[in-house]
Amino acid sequence: MIPLPPVAHREIDDALELALGRLRARSAALGESAGALGVATAAAATGGKRVRPALVAAAFSAFGGDLTRAPGLWRVAAAFELLHAAFVVHDDLIDGDVERRGVPNVMGAFRDRARARGGDDDAAGMLGAAAAVLAGDLLLFEATRLIATAPVAAPQRAALFVLLDDALLVSAAGELADVEQTIGDALPATESLLRTARDKTAFYSFQAPLAAGALLAGATDDERAALEAAGADIGIAFQLADDLIGTFGSRDEAGREPGADLRASKRTPVIALAAESEAWPQVASALALAPTGPIAIRRAQHELTASGARERTVELIRTTLDRARTRADAAALPAAAHQLLETLADAVDRRIPR
Amino acid sequence: MIPLPPVAHREIDDALELALGRLRARSAALGESAGALGVATAAAATGGKRVRPALVAAAFSAFGGDLTRAPGLWRVAAAFELLHAAFVVHDDLIDGDVERRGVPNVMGAFRDRARARGGDDDAAGMLGAAAAVLAGDLLLFEATRLIATAPVAAPQRAALFVLLDDALLVSAAGELADVEQTIGDALPATESLLRTARDKTAFYSFQAPLAAGALLAGATDDERAALEAAGADIGIAFQLADDLIGTFGSRDEAGREPGADLRASKRTPVIALAAESEAWPQVASALALAPTGPIAIRRAQHELTASGARERTVELIRTTLDRARTRADAAALPAAAHQLLETLADAVDRRIPR
Repeated sequence: MIPLPPVAHREIDDALELALGRLRARSAALGESAGALGVATAAAATGGKRVRPALVAAAFSAFGGDLTRAPGLWRVAAAFELLHAAFVVHDDLIDGDVERRGVPNVMGAFRDRARARGGDDDAAGMLGAAAAVLAGDLLLFEATRLIATAPVAAPQRAALFVLLDDALLVSAAGELADVEQTIGDALPATESLLRTARDKTAFYSFQAPLAAGALLAGATDDERAALEAAGADIGIAFQLADDLIGTFGSRDEAGREPGADLRASKRTPVIALAAESEAWPQVASALALAPTGPIAIRRAQHELTASGARERTVELIRTTLDRARTRADAAALPAAAHQLLETLADAVDRRIPR
Repeated sequence: MIPLPPVAHREIDDALELALGRLRARSAALGESAGALGVATAAAATGGKRVRPALVAAAFSAFGGDLTRAPGLWRVAAAFELLHAAFVVHDDLIDGDVERRGVPNVMGAFRDRARARGGDDDAAGMLGAAAAVLAGDLLLFEATRLIATAPVAAPQRAALFVLLDDALLVSAAGELADVEQTIGDALPATESLLRTARDKTAFYSFQAPLAAGALLAGATDDERAALEAAGADIGIAFQLADDLIGTFGSRDEAGREPGADLRASKRTPVIALAAESEAWPQVASALALAPTGPIAIRRAQHELTASGARERTVELIRTTLDRARTRADAAALPAAAHQLLETLADAVDRRIPR
């Protein structure tokens, strides 16, 4: 997604492995059970595409930072991956998910552990939840610790903590809204679902990592503001493309069962756009049946497409990406920063399922 | 419990109110639902006795720190209360508790909120869990942020992060062990239950706050090590006294229904000591009935006392406090630090229910 020199990927991987190896070793020293928590916690931060650290490094480089002489950068970059892992672990707990990428996640692993010790369903649920709460806490703290103790100047650390502070609160607001929007009969308006997507994902995944890299490279406040505005739009477009993938994507595109969002009756902007159309009665009855199996899912996909919601979502993604490009063009950013935003916008466009 | 000048209590309260007021205001700016989360999160860190911040300030003062000229101290002290609140919120989530001090906690408040919006039991459980996860995350981050941005010298901040790092991991290990020890038929050994009490409570509640205050006052490594060893013992004794209160304490002493630990079938060291006695068969059958009501609880209390477990727990508390006093005497600590440890040991002794 982001063209970075190989050295950057290696430095990011090294910084993460240092943090996770340290966590595993310190946990193991506290006994078998803590050791198992350390292993599961480290595994939760392993195997992802590490997009967020790459965004930190790419923004740093785009604003003239020298990747070969950037001592604090890699800790800050790694911190964003740990923050993401913390959110994923706690999100899975809230959603009751026990697997990720086809293998047991922290909660799943500790449910199995409780059963292996003779625990019943209640015991398994309780130990799974305990481990997920604690693993997320450890990852969140480790993300914060890496930044608090990174070798950067005091004003930069203060600015990074303003960013982190916003990232935590905005993501929490988005996560809470995401759950609240599933409650009650009324389908939330498209506008509030887009706001939730921005809060829950775009801020901490795009806007904040880009801003962190830029501020470490010494970007001006105006440059950072322009970068953040464009980054937020790209993040929203990314999340909308993700919703299309979860609704219409093939198994290859989604990396899981096709139509998983329909099976889970998720209230995404795609659904909200269908609700604005005249075809909503047919869509609604198809959606109500979608959890029953693959044939019902294909029927819901068909009705959604017929309602125009798929095409309108694609348009919304393109409009959002164009706005990001316009914002980037209007701002006096270095050429490399323009190029980075262009690359990101193109990459999101290519994620739209065809 | 800790005699501090009134100014210290005021500074602690001010630092906490500043952090919590800021959290409420920033949450409210993100909308009604985020605002409700901010209010519930701030409430979770309000109304406690603020023992941990008082320990930070008392240790700082005992090692010669000047409470009237201690700019970073109050943020660090406040951070330990926020850390405690984060652990309590996440602990309640793990235990499924929806009340604290007789009023709905974060989870309880958001379960009620989901029902008010027409949510069923599943929706209420999910929103309650989401809010508890997020509130704990916000409190944990705020604790870390206060220390990361406190006006203290870089080596002191680094040392504080070593302490925090240990506090997080050791507490997580203790919390996990606490849950694991409820699983399966075998009653864990007294030794491992004591270890759990130390890990889950004594470290972050006594050892770490005392160490933080001492290091901010410039105590030597040897002084800090002696203080931490004595603090850990006092913390274990405190937890054992708490177990006695939860088992035998009056409503006034416990601040809740008498015998709550028996009702909840908690596996405390008191129970493990009874299991080592010849009277265990009678105790075990009384404990099995304890969740059924007040008469069965009184019978279990009677059998536990008859087994000698109550008296042995009191002896264990006194031995542990004596060890703390001996450690304090053996170390070359300032007179005021001796006095502080003596005061704390006496206060824990007075908590033992008569």
